[in-house]
Amino acid sequence: MKAEIISTGTELLLGETLNTSAHFLTGKLSSLGIEVDYHTTVGDNPERLEQVIRQAIGRTDLIITTGGLGPTVDDLTKELVAKVLKLEMELDPSCLEQINQFFGRRKAPMPMNNEKQAYFPKGSKILPNPIGTAPGAIIEINGKTVIILPGPPFEMNPMFDNYVWPELQQTIEPTDERMYERVLKVFGMGESAIEEVLADLMSFPNLSMALLAKRAEMHIRMVSRSSYSKSEEAEDVLNQAEKEIRRRLGNKVFGRDQESMVGIVGQLLKNKQFTIATAESCTGGLLGAALTQEPGSSEFYLGGVVSYSNSLKQGLLGVSEKSLLEYGAVSEEVAKEMAKGIRSTAGTDLAISTTGIAGPDGGSEQKPVGLVCIGLATPEGVQAEKIQLYGERESVRQLTVQAALNRVRLHMLNIERRLQFGDG
Amino acid sequence: MKAEIISTGTELLLGETLNTSAHFLTGKLSSLGIEVDYHTTVGDNPERLEQVIRQAIGRTDLIITTGGLGPTVDDLTKELVAKVLKLEMELDPSCLEQINQFFGRRKAPMPMNNEKQAYFPKGSKILPNPIGTAPGAIIEINGKTVIILPGPPFEMNPMFDNYVWPELQQTIEPTDERMYERVLKVFGMGESAIEEVLADLMSFPNLSMALLAKRAEMHIRMVSRSSYSKSEEAEDVLNQAEKEIRRRLGNKVFGRDQESMVGIVGQLLKNKQFTIATAESCTGGLLGAALTQEPGSSEFYLGGVVSYSNSLKQGLLGVSEKSLLEYGAVSEEVAKEMAKGIRSTAGTDLAISTTGIAGPDGGSEQKPVGLVCIGLATPEGVQAEKIQLYGERESVRQLTVQAALNRVRLHMLNIERRLQFGDG
Repeated sequence: MKAEIISTGTELLLGETLNTSAHFLTGKLSSLGIEVDYHTTVGDNPERLEQVIRQAIGRTDLIITTGGLGPTVDDLTKELVAKVLKLEMELDPSCLEQINQFFGRRKAPMPMNNEKQAYFPKGSKILPNPIGTAPGAIIEINGKTVIILPGPPFEMNPMFDNYVWPELQQTIEPTDERMYERVLKVFGMGESAIEEVLADLMSFPNLSMALLAKRAEMHIRMVSRSSYSKSEEAEDVLNQAEKEIRRRLGNKVFGRDQESMVGIVGQLLKNKQFTIATAESCTGGLLGAALTQEPGSSEFYLGGVVSYSNSLKQGLLGVSEKSLLEYGAVSEEVAKEMAKGIRSTAGTDLAISTTGIAGPDGGSEQKPVGLVCIGLATPEGVQAEKIQLYGERESVRQLTVQAALNRVRLHMLNIERRLQFGDG
Repeated sequence: MKAEIISTGTELLLGETLNTSAHFLTGKLSSLGIEVDYHTTVGDNPERLEQVIRQAIGRTDLIITTGGLGPTVDDLTKELVAKVLKLEMELDPSCLEQINQFFGRRKAPMPMNNEKQAYFPKGSKILPNPIGTAPGAIIEINGKTVIILPGPPFEMNPMFDNYVWPELQQTIEPTDERMYERVLKVFGMGESAIEEVLADLMSFPNLSMALLAKRAEMHIRMVSRSSYSKSEEAEDVLNQAEKEIRRRLGNKVFGRDQESMVGIVGQLLKNKQFTIATAESCTGGLLGAALTQEPGSSEFYLGGVVSYSNSLKQGLLGVSEKSLLEYGAVSEEVAKEMAKGIRSTAGTDLAISTTGIAGPDGGSEQKPVGLVCIGLATPEGVQAEKIQLYGERESVRQLTVQAALNRVRLHMLNIERRLQFGDG
């Protein structure tokens, strides 16, 4: 099956909005083995949009559009798809009811304009939008499938995952070839270091491997191909390669596929029923925000202090004035006292602290921008490490969060290892 | 002048690589007043790429391609542009010399493949590539301009800035028309409500207006056109429209253009030399992280507490057990006590608190997911408001942060107003 993606929205052609939707969709489709041949972006211009839709329907089996479903007069995707396919527009009463309810929940009357969002090309299968007022639609006609989705990624992505993905999965035959993909995620090693260690694996049969540099992580993306009915062949190749990579990189590999550093850390804490608290300076709350990202985080995260000022470091964490004066706020000594202080106040098993110079100002020769100290307090005592990070303010802050989480991860892995080998 | 961008590269259609080049180019072109009508992405497939180039040259004045300039056999952009324009391919000796030097600097022999990169459609103006081995080209023929650029953004962006931008600027006459743009940012009003209030402004002469829904904001994007030599005419239109929109929407408009909610709040606090502290529950540190996003935030933000557990609400913020039992952690009462507690500990002018049910679990009939209480403590006392938000966990958390920041903004605006009218 061949697919084509059409993005509409003038903002996409002004350099205002980065088109992440096409990226999301091409990734999903190619993992199903559906090849995307073209992706076209066009503004909210009826002539050009119509022409692009007509061309796509003429040359491709599966067309996915994003955008142009809003309540305003320049939102015309459904109307133009109907025109090209020679279908009437029809009001869907249950959809109108849902849009009414959307406004009802917000205790606001439904503006007249929004009625437009309940009209669809005749024969559409309507896709609900629990987040916004623009439902999507699937139209199947003359062997072609047109899928109409809203523009904003926070509405489009869940609609695709919940309603479109299951439909597309059903269309796949057992003999169709597809790509089987696995991503291993690495913290604490650069692209060329990984490449050197893994160079000979690049010629593994039926395996292609690529390295992708993310902000604080390296992703090793492995792809193996086989038909749907022989998926275990591809899985075997991926399993063997994963095993070998993990053997070589050890605990630098922190997760795979959808796993995230913070998810892994949460899981390790939950497994041992450990609790944790945070004391943050340069990260300003980002570490707590990361730890509370997933539902259920209250099982292990009790809270913490954002001690951006020295007065709060002293007042809420009991950091000594002596250490602040003698070593400065960005020091291993202060990081240790911060972690110790919050651990004792919160009564947690572990506590982690961050203090550093996020920049762009505030650096000096002794303590340059990017210098960060991370403290870890455990029942056995307190330790701190000093690391030098690089990049802009937001990068330094995000990297600090990842480094702190990784510190907790390594600690939890050590505990597991000690228990396993009885040397604790 | 109308433009069209063609991106080629199979990796762009696999969801591997996000197409930031098109975003970069559309931004640059539209700031020059060059309208981008289409952006097409196509894989490294000769038939499809040729067809897309042919269509673009047929309908548009200025075509910019990115990608397909590498040394491998599937890199075919220059060859296909030459074919469509019926031009010969010609070796450029000085270019070959430069590619040789590139490998010389790396002490490596030039692979045979790379010779291909020194061939160009006859009549090309060659654009040097100091970073890689793929030079670009500008071809002007029959009133059409085709600009051929490499794919990797770190090669393409500087090549555009150094060689293409000056060329394009020269083609602009003082009498050419360009777009002048202004964005007004609104918090606390939906798309259709804004449209209803502003409907008649849509027919303002020489003004086009579009609404863009962001996660917690609505953007009103206004465009006025005039020639380069009469830019003040367009500025006048934008000023008048901005004034009228601000009159109608009042303090729902929180900023314009590059201004952000958190930037505005920081500025208002700095103007009055006010300090602020935070007490966060459902946002888990996101509010502190937002307030510390910009450099210089330590001028107004002293820190706060992430009281994810009730024990920390009591221990660090002095929330009473009675209120927790009687009203629950998500209540206006507890939000008030949280704000009061951190204000007194941190000794700040203001303190803001958040407590709510981010979901997906933890909701009840009385307190559904998305219910959030925001407390504000000031020298005059403490107040709280209860709001109902919608969406997934991360949306609820982000919306809570924006609502809390907006609360601070409105408070600071009130102080300004009171001082101005002397009724404080």
